[in-house]
Amino acid sequence: MAFDPPFDSPADTRTSIMRATYDALIEHGYENLTIQRIGDEFPKSKSLIYRHYDGKDDVLVALLEFLLDHLKSQMPQPTTTDAHDCLRNLLDFVLAPDADAERAELTNVMVELRGQSPHNRVFREYFSTNDRTFQRGLVDIVERGIEQGAYRPVDPEPVAEFVLTTMSGATIRQATTEDVTDIAAVRRELDAYVEARLLRAE
Amino acid sequence: MAFDPPFDSPADTRTSIMRATYDALIEHGYENLTIQRIGDEFPKSKSLIYRHYDGKDDVLVALLEFLLDHLKSQMPQPTTTDAHDCLRNLLDFVLAPDADAERAELTNVMVELRGQSPHNRVFREYFSTNDRTFQRGLVDIVERGIEQGAYRPVDPEPVAEFVLTTMSGATIRQATTEDVTDIAAVRRELDAYVEARLLRAE
Repeated sequence: MAFDPPFDSPADTRTSIMRATYDALIEHGYENLTIQRIGDEFPKSKSLIYRHYDGKDDVLVALLEFLLDHLKSQMPQPTTTDAHDCLRNLLDFVLAPDADAERAELTNVMVELRGQSPHNRVFREYFSTNDRTFQRGLVDIVERGIEQGAYRPVDPEPVAEFVLTTMSGATIRQATTEDVTDIAAVRRELDAYVEARLLRAE
Repeated sequence: MAFDPPFDSPADTRTSIMRATYDALIEHGYENLTIQRIGDEFPKSKSLIYRHYDGKDDVLVALLEFLLDHLKSQMPQPTTTDAHDCLRNLLDFVLAPDADAERAELTNVMVELRGQSPHNRVFREYFSTNDRTFQRGLVDIVERGIEQGAYRPVDPEPVAEFVLTTMSGATIRQATTEDVTDIAAVRRELDAYVEARLLRAE
């Protein structure tokens, strides 16, 4: 499945600052991020960062918003009216067993930002909105599958909640452990769940 | 299900330092943690911290080890030979819908520490070992269930991987979102998975 990194060719100043912040996060991690280090990745004057943002926290909120929008734009859109194909495409994308280095970097940054949420109300709100939107998209797929007669008449909300939770768990475990998380196994078992819970017997 | 907070009555100096670090993390979050702030929560002289640990990173690794051990000790141990009862007890404990404030604090701290893992090799190794141990425990339960004739003859590894991933996802999503994650729904759907995938038809 095609995946575009969040920064291809930086354009305006704000996007360049986002890119510099992202590169500094990949290089140094959240704990060691400073405006100085963002400035080191930024091709223009560091003072421009302060002209556009009220310091590090403000830059990081803007980056979180930017990356969540980017991720949303990367999610497979329904290219088919078949609900089960849509679900499969989404799982293929999120639970890709062979994610490339650029995608792993993006996942790492998102996991580090998410790890700040217990103490950062603004981040928590962004992740809440993000989870809600994602869950809503899954509910839509399940509802369509029921209408199309492919899925059993289940309550779509808990099913969507469960699928989202499994995908989040797999992504976060993979980014925070070393050669431990078996994404392919999670995918196979999630397929078994979908088959038992959603798919009608032929 | 009974849950003991990690610190009841601090005893030796090292445990007091762990408690002070834990309290400082709850108060200030990982990002804003300093030895000064650990010292503020520590009833004795701050110099004692340096006598026992080589600075902040060293204290945090010791705390992570301490908390992972504590969590392991809190996990329900097999009190029954019935494998399915063991699995249910474990799910009741991890996916408790009504976790109290002390437990939520511990979860928040663990999620913040886990969020450092993409950039912290030592943390990543601890979480890898922890996940492996937890997954191993789940494999044992599934294997026993198969031996006892209660579970179908499935491959226990991917099932354990999936259950662990779902539990991690639910815990982390709950700590990083606001009134969004429906733990009870995740539990119900996980039960549906277990029923379809593991339990033999009566």
